[in-house]
Amino acid sequence: MLTSIRNSSVLTAQFRLGACRVGNATTLKASQLFSRKQQRFAHTPTRNAGFKQLTSADIEQFKSMLPSETILATPAVGGSSDPVELEGFNADWLNKYRGASQLVLRPKSTQEVADILRYCNENQIAVVPQGGNTGLVGGSVPVHDEVVLSLRNLNKIRGYDEVSGVLACDAGCVLEELDNYVAERGHTMPLDLGAKGSCHIGGNVATNAGGIRFLRYGSLHGSVLGLEVVLPDGTILDNMSLLRKDNTGYDLKQLFIGSEGTLGVITGVSLLTPRRPAAVNVAVLGVSSYEQVQVAFKLARQRCGEILSAFEFWDASCMGAVLHHHALRNPLSSEFPFYVLIETSGSNKSHDDEKLSELLEELMEAEVVEDGALAQDDSQIAKMWTMREGIPESLGKTGATYKYDVSIPIPVLYDVVGDIASRLEAAGLYKQGDTTRPVKLVCGYGHIGDSNLHLNIVADKFQDKVTDIFEPFVYEWVQSHRGSISAEHGIGLMKRDYLKYSKSSPMIDYMKRIKSLFDPKGILNPYKVV
Amino acid sequence: MLTSIRNSSVLTAQFRLGACRVGNATTLKASQLFSRKQQRFAHTPTRNAGFKQLTSADIEQFKSMLPSETILATPAVGGSSDPVELEGFNADWLNKYRGASQLVLRPKSTQEVADILRYCNENQIAVVPQGGNTGLVGGSVPVHDEVVLSLRNLNKIRGYDEVSGVLACDAGCVLEELDNYVAERGHTMPLDLGAKGSCHIGGNVATNAGGIRFLRYGSLHGSVLGLEVVLPDGTILDNMSLLRKDNTGYDLKQLFIGSEGTLGVITGVSLLTPRRPAAVNVAVLGVSSYEQVQVAFKLARQRCGEILSAFEFWDASCMGAVLHHHALRNPLSSEFPFYVLIETSGSNKSHDDEKLSELLEELMEAEVVEDGALAQDDSQIAKMWTMREGIPESLGKTGATYKYDVSIPIPVLYDVVGDIASRLEAAGLYKQGDTTRPVKLVCGYGHIGDSNLHLNIVADKFQDKVTDIFEPFVYEWVQSHRGSISAEHGIGLMKRDYLKYSKSSPMIDYMKRIKSLFDPKGILNPYKVV
Repeated sequence: MLTSIRNSSVLTAQFRLGACRVGNATTLKASQLFSRKQQRFAHTPTRNAGFKQLTSADIEQFKSMLPSETILATPAVGGSSDPVELEGFNADWLNKYRGASQLVLRPKSTQEVADILRYCNENQIAVVPQGGNTGLVGGSVPVHDEVVLSLRNLNKIRGYDEVSGVLACDAGCVLEELDNYVAERGHTMPLDLGAKGSCHIGGNVATNAGGIRFLRYGSLHGSVLGLEVVLPDGTILDNMSLLRKDNTGYDLKQLFIGSEGTLGVITGVSLLTPRRPAAVNVAVLGVSSYEQVQVAFKLARQRCGEILSAFEFWDASCMGAVLHHHALRNPLSSEFPFYVLIETSGSNKSHDDEKLSELLEELMEAEVVEDGALAQDDSQIAKMWTMREGIPESLGKTGATYKYDVSIPIPVLYDVVGDIASRLEAAGLYKQGDTTRPVKLVCGYGHIGDSNLHLNIVADKFQDKVTDIFEPFVYEWVQSHRGSISAEHGIGLMKRDYLKYSKSSPMIDYMKRIKSLFDPKGILNPYKVV
Repeated sequence: MLTSIRNSSVLTAQFRLGACRVGNATTLKASQLFSRKQQRFAHTPTRNAGFKQLTSADIEQFKSMLPSETILATPAVGGSSDPVELEGFNADWLNKYRGASQLVLRPKSTQEVADILRYCNENQIAVVPQGGNTGLVGGSVPVHDEVVLSLRNLNKIRGYDEVSGVLACDAGCVLEELDNYVAERGHTMPLDLGAKGSCHIGGNVATNAGGIRFLRYGSLHGSVLGLEVVLPDGTILDNMSLLRKDNTGYDLKQLFIGSEGTLGVITGVSLLTPRRPAAVNVAVLGVSSYEQVQVAFKLARQRCGEILSAFEFWDASCMGAVLHHHALRNPLSSEFPFYVLIETSGSNKSHDDEKLSELLEELMEAEVVEDGALAQDDSQIAKMWTMREGIPESLGKTGATYKYDVSIPIPVLYDVVGDIASRLEAAGLYKQGDTTRPVKLVCGYGHIGDSNLHLNIVADKFQDKVTDIFEPFVYEWVQSHRGSISAEHGIGLMKRDYLKYSKSSPMIDYMKRIKSLFDPKGILNPYKVV
């Protein structure tokens, strides 16, 4: 039962939602965003000559292991697929990275995955595992002619325990479909992200995805209870525990969480799904400075405590792009330098309303927040989330987007945006509001509660004279502030050369030893991570 | 401000707290619990002849690295310490495992730890790292003459960020002292366990300790943000991240969480401390059957949702022992087959009171719970917790206690207690209420929310004819129910031979490879885990 918010008459005047006109977010195709002719990022590693080049004999071998409809092979390797058919597997979501694979395999069982990998390992054939291909660091597409091993046909739910909330499923299940499945049983997936309609749970685990509910439900290192992983030599590591607690030896599954498909191929996942909150509230607030954003965050944690499930922020540039490209109207009375989205999720609607309404009153009275809108129903909640989740797509539609995903201590988190804007201005490449310059926007949004900034630079095209202004500067900046050069997106191809900015030599040395232990021939997702 | 509970007049009649007369729990000495003459557990592995036996030349080397007051060496190795002085380092908390180390080193810095390990590694000297020595599986004491490397002098807090709640500290800090420290700053440690007054945070991490707040704050795999680890060759792996999100390469620190000191020595820990709840409520309930315990748990999760912070249970045998040895009076009107402790922790006292009181009313009305007591103040809360946390100590005072810590799916979790009692009865070793038999009690308690049972068998002494009745039966039983033979206590020496009941051969094979990777000479905590 929906209980009205205390002092709602007071709040109504100050918190209102504009007539949002956005439809449902749709899954993007790379081709919708960018021209295929645009320049690829530089620094592509040379092909490792040790890897075998596929022949028709290899294709025949794969045909003996797999149903024919699961194989896409071009004439170049003795198949009959049009190379255009392979385009979606060769290019990443942002069309920033593109490989030239001639073969895509889409196995339907863990055993088929094992058979494929054993053959590739014996024959020194390089393989790139691919989930929903929604990554942002070039980790899920081939660099050269690696075989694409798509997990999309491994998409069954294996079991669900409604008492404990433990879900066991194949790696290729789509996150949103899993969330719908557990929602019908009163639970929620412990992670949520903009790509939920396309990304696979296996890919989420392989990249240790964060997302917008991290603040509430924490890391996948805590939520994942078990994994089934196929190693390059075809060994199936069955660690599909359904137990919350299991202290029997080294927790090997943890190594695969965030290893980006370079140590083994995740084929099965079991994880804990929390109870679905009975009540969800969302408010969008207008804030005059980044300092006030921090004050609002501190107060929100104090007042809303255990029900605070998201605290997101974005700047005026992001808001401009998302309102324009999603044809939304600003729900607030005027424009602000910063916007905050607060979400609460709890088990008792009237308690949650009271906590949030006290917080909002306090924020208004203390003039931390200048205006705000409080969603009145699920539809308004969805529209408010579009303002935040629609930002990446809107920036992508604005131009070629350089994306950096960094962790920085909260007090200085937004400073990097200004510092990079200044460098671009000094180089004559950017001037705020001047659309004739090569760089159109330098902007930031992200998850305050997790110290996680998404720094985006939108240019007319990707070009070295722009890139060189902020690379490796951005990594040096993050290192000097003891941050992480990849908060949640991972390393992939994009950041492999920059790993040293966040990890010491001994750490990188041991990462390489771990890689050699599990993948001694280096066939799995080569050129990535370490 | 304390707000009275809704319908408190109704509740007062049904929920009341007896006049508990317990004092503060004290840290136990092994000698208080058991005679030193009692039989040690069988199956001690043979000493590895490859390990060097210490000489006075080695002691001289250690003296050149460390302040003399940090070295305890017996005359047998050229020192002057009385072997009795080393007793506390050689024997475990339960006096079940005992080594014969002649040398204890208590370094004061990470560099000293590195110097010690490098020397030991070069000279093939076996080492057992030791924290608070409160483990229950023989993991923290020598098996033979390993050098004891005690972390107790590494006990400084390195830093605390009150905005993010991130704590960085040395491994030898005592858990309770850390909790007091962060409590003063409005936060709480994300784990709590009976041994908190003695155990070290480094040991907690090394054993992936669970405890009573696991239900709320989850696993250390999620809470630990960074580690500093010294490898056997003296390499210092600095992974002391202070960030919630850091996806830069393989998450190596995860391997050391739960590795029980066999891969490296943890010297520093950083972890996330949640905000301390403003309101805590505790109730103890009397329940007529294990089925009703489950019904109560399900309802508690529905009604209390995000504020439920503990749901513990114990049986009548445990209650009898704890009331007797702690001189407590049962707060309920009569005896029950099962008792449940419910704790809520939240940010708003009146909201929490309302949620809990609705739950308790519903449980009483549905006759799930027959009687209950609700703590009215902090002192009563502490006494109720003593009823649960005092169980291990009370059973220890009752006799020689065989302890099994297992994960089992909730519906069949308590069945193992009855099955083992039946086997002991059939062998003539046990009859309920008959104190003349070798086995006095077969009982169970634990964390329902985590599917975690502590199965305890209390006998007059440890002897093979008793042990053989339930070992390996208990492990086979757990395996057949897809449980874990160690939910939170770890493997140590006790369960190394039984690891196969919870992990497959390929998993154990890769654990051994990981061990060889980090500790190729096998000097670190030998004879344990794998």
